[in-house]
Amino acid sequence: MQMPQALSDAALAAASKEARAIGVPMNVAIMDVGANLKAFLRMDGALLGSLDIALKKARTAALFAMNTEAIGEFCKPGGTSPGLDATNGGLVVFAGGIPLHDAGGIFLGAIGVSGGSVSQDFQVAAAAVEAARSAQTEGETEWQ
Amino acid sequence: MQMPQALSDAALAAASKEARAIGVPMNVAIMDVGANLKAFLRMDGALLGSLDIALKKARTAALFAMNTEAIGEFCKPGGTSPGLDATNGGLVVFAGGIPLHDAGGIFLGAIGVSGGSVSQDFQVAAAAVEAARSAQTEGETEWQ
Amino acid sequence: MQMPQALSDAALAAASKEARAIGVPMNVAIMDVGANLKAFLRMDGALLGSLDIALKKARTAALFAMNTEAIGEFCKPGGTSPGLDATNGGLVVFAGGIPLHDAGGIFLGAIGVSGGSVSQDFQVAAAAVEAARSAQTEGETEWQ
Amino acid sequence: MQMPQALSDAALAAASKEARAIGVPMNVAIMDVGANLKAFLRMDGALLGSLDIALKKARTAALFAMNTEAIGEFCKPGGTSPGLDATNGGLVVFAGGIPLHDAGGIFLGAIGVSGGSVSQDFQVAAAAVEAARSAQTEGETEWQ
Repeated sequence: MQMPQALSDAALAAASKEARAIGVPMNVAIMDVGANLKAFLRMDGALLGSLDIALKKARTAALFAMNTEAIGEFCKPGGTSPGLDATNGGLVVFAGGIPLHDAGGIFLGAIGVSGGSVSQDFQVAAAAVEAARSAQTEGETEWQ
Repeated sequence: MQMPQALSDAALAAASKEARAIGVPMNVAIMDVGANLKAFLRMDGALLGSLDIALKKARTAALFAMNTEAIGEFCKPGGTSPGLDATNGGLVVFAGGIPLHDAGGIFLGAIGVSGGSVSQDFQVAAAAVEAARSAQTEGETEWQ
Repeated sequence: MQMPQALSDAALAAASKEARAIGVPMNVAIMDVGANLKAFLRMDGALLGSLDIALKKARTAALFAMNTEAIGEFCKPGGTSPGLDATNGGLVVFAGGIPLHDAGGIFLGAIGVSGGSVSQDFQVAAAAVEAARSAQTEGETEWQ
Repeated sequence: MQMPQALSDAALAAASKEARAIGVPMNVAIMDVGANLKAFLRMDGALLGSLDIALKKARTAALFAMNTEAIGEFCKPGGTSPGLDATNGGLVVFAGGIPLHDAGGIFLGAIGVSGGSVSQDFQVAAAAVEAARSAQTEGETEWQ
């Protein structure tokens, strides 16, 4: 199922609002179930180097339908899958990437946030996830 | 000078509005003067293969501060610069990428639009450029 | 804000002078706020393998507006961001990359130095940063 | 034989002087016989997209010890080597890259210039080549 723009708009708006609330400009990336970019925003003053990290967090969480830090468990020292993070063109395996679901619990993709501390990134992504779940959406816009 | 989000927001909104007006879902990418991504949107139903084209159109126009189709003149058969389009990781040299300036005429980056016919892409990008020029912006948001 | 050549010239000259003073030939790279190359010099006898390191140090410090070794803290064992150094095409996270600011404290990019011991690289980069801060510059050269 | 900095300094200074004389800011790259970067300068206002072109012109001319436009003859329609320009990570095969020799005629690398029209790029590169040939250099600096 495709991610409707109504959902990515809601997630992006919620992430921006939370980032402003904590005073940390963020890079926010949203990818669909195909791990293809749906929406992106680099807020004024957000770290340039976090652009790639936000993209890779969204990609990582979308590819595995799992929080980025959960994937990190598999590839940490002693984990089951050493080098997992080097697959798929390079994953990012610390917090800030979270899967997105609609109100019905359908998996639609993921959001990745980067620009602050790891806990701040997670906080902003979580706010977006919550907003996406609450978004009333009728699915993708129909084009005649 | 950095591109303020107020300007990329205005450009993205204008592009979306024009795309809906003509009934063609578009990929819209906005890059700053360093050719780094500032904002992106893939509208519902927009062609997936046009995602990369929109990014490359924005990148091409930002790198050369010139419309993408103008750059195409240099590398067409008999042009002065054969193979120019293979530089910079691959340029896109047909219409749909246009530089963005603020109300004072300062070059701030570029927009790239892809998803319809080339003339539709250009039309949507041009609407965004016009909106950016009219946007009242005080520069980047200040963070305490 | 773009980095004026007057500033990169001053930084490069100071780095070369310090490198000669300690008798260690260096690779010196300077990037702007968009992490795009502004100036580069490989001094006679400088290690070839340090060319890429100097470029990546400058890129790393420009992308995060932070000293390279400070970024290393985030991705060392037990740090908050394992694998951070694999983002952005590969960062270099030991000393020798330092942000550059003008006399007014405006962030303009970064310098990366490589060719000697890490402490020598840092010493040469620091001398360049000091020179850049003292440089009297009226901004970029105007072209009619 | 390695390229002494005295020669790359002379070439870079002559290129800058010629670029200012014609009022066109240029990207100037100098590579040694190993096709490795020796020196680079992006003059204030020089097109960002020409950065990669200058690097590739210098690389192309250094790799083949030949002017870039001469290499273009081999891969133009009807030429002997179709696709030659796609080798070596992508060559640039229009004018602006020229081999560098010292006063004794020894091949030491190449210069690549980009930022203006192709004929302007060639003019600036040619001025640098002339300056390099006239430079009195005792070879690379000796380090004790």
